[in-house]
This record gives sequence, structure tokens and C-alpha cells, in this order.
Amino acid sequence: MHTEPNRVCDLLGIRYPIIQAGMVWCSGWKLAAAAANAGALGLIGSASMYPDVLREHIRKCQKATDRPFGVNVALLYPEIDKLMEIITGEGVKIVFTSAGNPATWTAFLKERGVTVVHVVSSSKFARKAADAGVDGVVAEGFEAGGHNGREETTTMCLVPMVCDAVSIPVIAAGGIGTGKSMCAAFALGAEGVQVGSRFVMSEESSAHANFKQAVADAKEGDTLLTLKKLTPVRLIRNRFFDQVREAQDRGASVDELKALLGRARAKQGMFEGDLDEGELEIGQVSGALAEVKSAADIVREIWEEFEMTRKRLGEG
Amino acid sequence: MHTEPNRVCDLLGIRYPIIQAGMVWCSGWKLAAAAANAGALGLIGSASMYPDVLREHIRKCQKATDRPFGVNVALLYPEIDKLMEIITGEGVKIVFTSAGNPATWTAFLKERGVTVVHVVSSSKFARKAADAGVDGVVAEGFEAGGHNGREETTTMCLVPMVCDAVSIPVIAAGGIGTGKSMCAAFALGAEGVQVGSRFVMSEESSAHANFKQAVADAKEGDTLLTLKKLTPVRLIRNRFFDQVREAQDRGASVDELKALLGRARAKQGMFEGDLDEGELEIGQVSGALAEVKSAADIVREIWEEFEMTRKRLGEG
Repeated sequence: MHTEPNRVCDLLGIRYPIIQAGMVWCSGWKLAAAAANAGALGLIGSASMYPDVLREHIRKCQKATDRPFGVNVALLYPEIDKLMEIITGEGVKIVFTSAGNPATWTAFLKERGVTVVHVVSSSKFARKAADAGVDGVVAEGFEAGGHNGREETTTMCLVPMVCDAVSIPVIAAGGIGTGKSMCAAFALGAEGVQVGSRFVMSEESSAHANFKQAVADAKEGDTLLTLKKLTPVRLIRNRFFDQVREAQDRGASVDELKALLGRARAKQGMFEGDLDEGELEIGQVSGALAEVKSAADIVREIWEEFEMTRKRLGEG
Repeated sequence: MHTEPNRVCDLLGIRYPIIQAGMVWCSGWKLAAAAANAGALGLIGSASMYPDVLREHIRKCQKATDRPFGVNVALLYPEIDKLMEIITGEGVKIVFTSAGNPATWTAFLKERGVTVVHVVSSSKFARKAADAGVDGVVAEGFEAGGHNGREETTTMCLVPMVCDAVSIPVIAAGGIGTGKSMCAAFALGAEGVQVGSRFVMSEESSAHANFKQAVADAKEGDTLLTLKKLTPVRLIRNRFFDQVREAQDRGASVDELKALLGRARAKQGMFEGDLDEGELEIGQVSGALAEVKSAADIVREIWEEFEMTRKRLGEG
């Protein structure tokens, strides 16, 4: 065990300072409960759920674990008020917010006894989140899968700057899927890590088998950040990606890109397994992922390697 | 002192496994000698030098230090054969190669008793370099300043993959300017670090005072990787950058971009201090750099923070 007091463990009531990221189409109650039961924080990703679906996932997760779990909420979600009513009404005690202004909902959640962590891509946004009263921030670098900041700051550069900017606990995200990279994040000043891509490759994730195979096959350079004129997103290069690139290279307008993106591309790719026409959101660390394992094995392996790495460095 | 044997120190005959990067227009003999005298490896950046100018820098560096130093060579340099004759003729014992095929010159250098390290942006290129017989590789991530790989893989993701791919020593580069980030690189498996941007901000660097001020003023998100249709390069956003972006957004051809880039933009920006029309190559870590210090202070601060950080982790 980590013997030093850890503010992320204390804040969230978890054994290991590892957060299983809330991810569209990949992290329902099964994954969140499995991660929680393994001693990490499990997060249900609500951005791909209708409000009633989220309620069902929360209730199933509560039955499947006695450990703390939370919900990740994209603040730009259209029916955000319904989502927030369900989350607080069902007694969820931890919410990770992202993609929006933390000032809007933090007070509402805090008044209802919810611990709030906000995801940021810059130290400027970290300061704003701290000012809004959040309990911690996730500093997410350019290498992370899915939606991403416009600054393109990598985890190696972002984490120290965010740690300098705020005094609340900083959780590092982006490029972290092993105990070595977790230890690197701690060297940079983080007190916890949020892991996404590696949990996409868990038995309990709801990612389609085709998508898991595509992640296993992905090599370095196979993901790129694209759609920067809309919202930047990191995904695996496939036919859909090539269409986007072709359109961007000839200077396509925002409207044309929106039409090309259309609706439900993410579901089509990650949940339904259409590897050609779907959107396949995953981090750069996919280049090093090959196997599907249980969430419990993933948590254990990350923690054991973290402990080994920090001891190796200490003895150096 | 690091008590563990370190292959990078052994290979290069240096005290600390810190390499001062060879950089166009910023790292002549003064910086290389100062870094060498401080116990790091100093590198003369030859890509911005005519062959005769390089000879002069090598000779001055030899007079200014008894410690090992090297020359960084971009393998796409037009008169590369002249450069290589001068380097070996003048008795330089360490060459870092980049931007080209390591198979072309490695044997020539090794036969003349030169230690060769090649800079790579992927584990595929690392394997090729190892096959070509180089003694070590620099794994340089997306956050690094100047020319950069097309894969856009960040240091956090790249270093572990390169360490898995080759058995020769791996030196991490990109986003590393402090002892904390050096320790993060070691957690990822690197045995040394190459530091660029922070040495641009040294008293001994030949960067123009205006450029140093621009680096001090740079905030997160102020550098971006651009000119991806030609050779991707990371630089500070200025008027020149905006012209490039505008051209790219409307789908400009490669020829048009080449004409826009023109000649001597890098010299104009970094050496002559034209902050509007010049090319200002620097890494993302510039967002955290504010002060100009001596190379000796930079080496000492990085090393002391590295030692402190690894001890903190070990005791965790």
C-alpha cells in the first residue's frame, strides 16, 4: 500500500488513487461497479445516455457495489437539468464534470453533498474551476482519447502547470494506462490518475468487440486529433477520419464538417462496431494496448507496477 | 549523486544524464561548452551553420572545455558530407543525428570512433536506428519545439513504447525542462533526458534577446505544431504563424506553403529577433519558463529537483 496520505483517496473514499474515466458508450454500470469493487473510482459516463437510461445505470451500479462510484457529466448535455436531478435524487455522491463552465452546476451539487471534480485542459480553466468551488481537477493532456482541449498541451507539460496554478488535488489524465505512466504523473505533481483507454479494453466495458479489436490493432500514430474547427476529438484513423481530413484539407466550412459528422457517429463506431463509418474515440496509449482484461486485473496491474516503479526510482 | 549505474552517463562520459539539445540558431560553442562544464552533455546545433562556421564552433568549444561535447546533425543537410568530414576531422567524439535515415552515416561515424545517438519520433524509427548500429536513441515527443514527427505521439506515450522496442539506452525529449519532468521520464523507462527550450533560455544561448523575451512571455497554448503538409514544426503563434494557418485553412498547396515559409525565417525570428515575421521554434514547456539563467544553474536545478523528486516518490 501507498503509506503516505493521499488527498485523492481521502476525497473520494477509494483505496487506490486511480479513476476509471467516464466514457461515452464504453462505461456503464458494469464497468463502474467492477472498477469500484477493485478499489478504484468507477465512473458512469452519462454523455451517451438518455436521462432514464442513466437512472437505470445508477441503480444497477448501487446494487453491484458498496464502494464509492460517480457519474461523469458533460456540462453541454442538452437536458442537463434532468440529468442533475436524477444524479442527486438517486443519491450519487461523486460527479466529474467536463466540457462546460464549472460555475453553472458546482454550487447545486455541493449543496446536495456531492463531491465535484472538473476536467480541464489548461491551468487557466483549472483556476476557474477552483474558483467555482470544485474539490479537485482532472488535468487532461492532448494524448487523451475523445474530446480534447484547443491548447493541445500534453500531459507532461500540463500537469506541472496545473499543479502550480491550484492547491486542490490534481488528477492526471491522457497517456496513462500503466503503473509507469502513473508514477510519471506523480513525479509531475499529480495525486491521482484518470485512466480511459485501458478500461475501454476491459471485459466489463460496453465497447463493441470490433472496437476493442481495433484498439488492440492500433499502432503509434493511428490516432489523431481532428475536427478542430468544431470540437477537437482524438480518434482512430479510419474511412470516416479520412473523409474529415479530405474535407479539412480543401478548406471545408464548419457547416459542411457538421453535416459530415452527422448524428450518432460515436454510437455507430464504439457501441455498434462499425469500424469504417463510425467515430472511434481512443487515446494515443492505444498503441501499447493489446489485451482485454478484467477491470480488477487492470487496477491491480497498474497499482503493482506503480509501486515497483516508485521504489526503483527511490533506490536509484 | 545518482548512485545507480547509468548507461547514458557511461556512454557519453558525462556526470549527469542530461543532454543540452542541439538547436538551430540557439546552441553554438558557448552554450555547448557551458553545458559540458556543468556536467551535462553539450551539443552544437549544426543545422544553422555553414561547414566553415561549424569548424570554428568546434574549435572554440574544444578550447572552452575539457569535458565531452557533441554535434547535432540534421541528416537532410545539403552538404552533409562536408559536415561529416569536419566533425570527424576535428576529433568530435559524439554525434546526435536527426531528420533522416540513420543507415546512411552511422557506419562512417562508428568506424571513426564516434558515438552515435539518433533522434526518433516512433518505436518503428527507433528499431531502424538500432538496426543501423546507433548507440542510443532520443525519443522526442509531440510537445518538443522545432521539427517534429508526423505521428504526434507525446513523450508520455512515446518513451515507454520506444523502451519496449529497443535495448539500447533511451533518452527522453519533449516537455522536459525540470527535475520533476526528468523524473517522470525516468519513471517511463528513459535513462537520460534531452532538454531544449530551457537551454534556449540560458545566458549562453545565441537566441536573440527578443526571442528569449517571447519565450518568457509564452503561455500554455501559445505554441502549436504547424506546416504539417511540409515538415511539421512547433513554434510560437505570431503573425507568420497566422499567415500559415490562414493559408492552410483555405487549402493552400504545398508549393504555396513553401513560398510562404521562404528562406531564413528561422534565422530571422530566433537569431535576429523579428517576432512578427520570423519563425520562433520552441517547445510547449515554454509556458512554464520565465527566467534566463546560466547553463550551470539550469543543470544544477534540474539535477537537484530530480533527486528530490525521486526520493519523494520512493518514500511515498
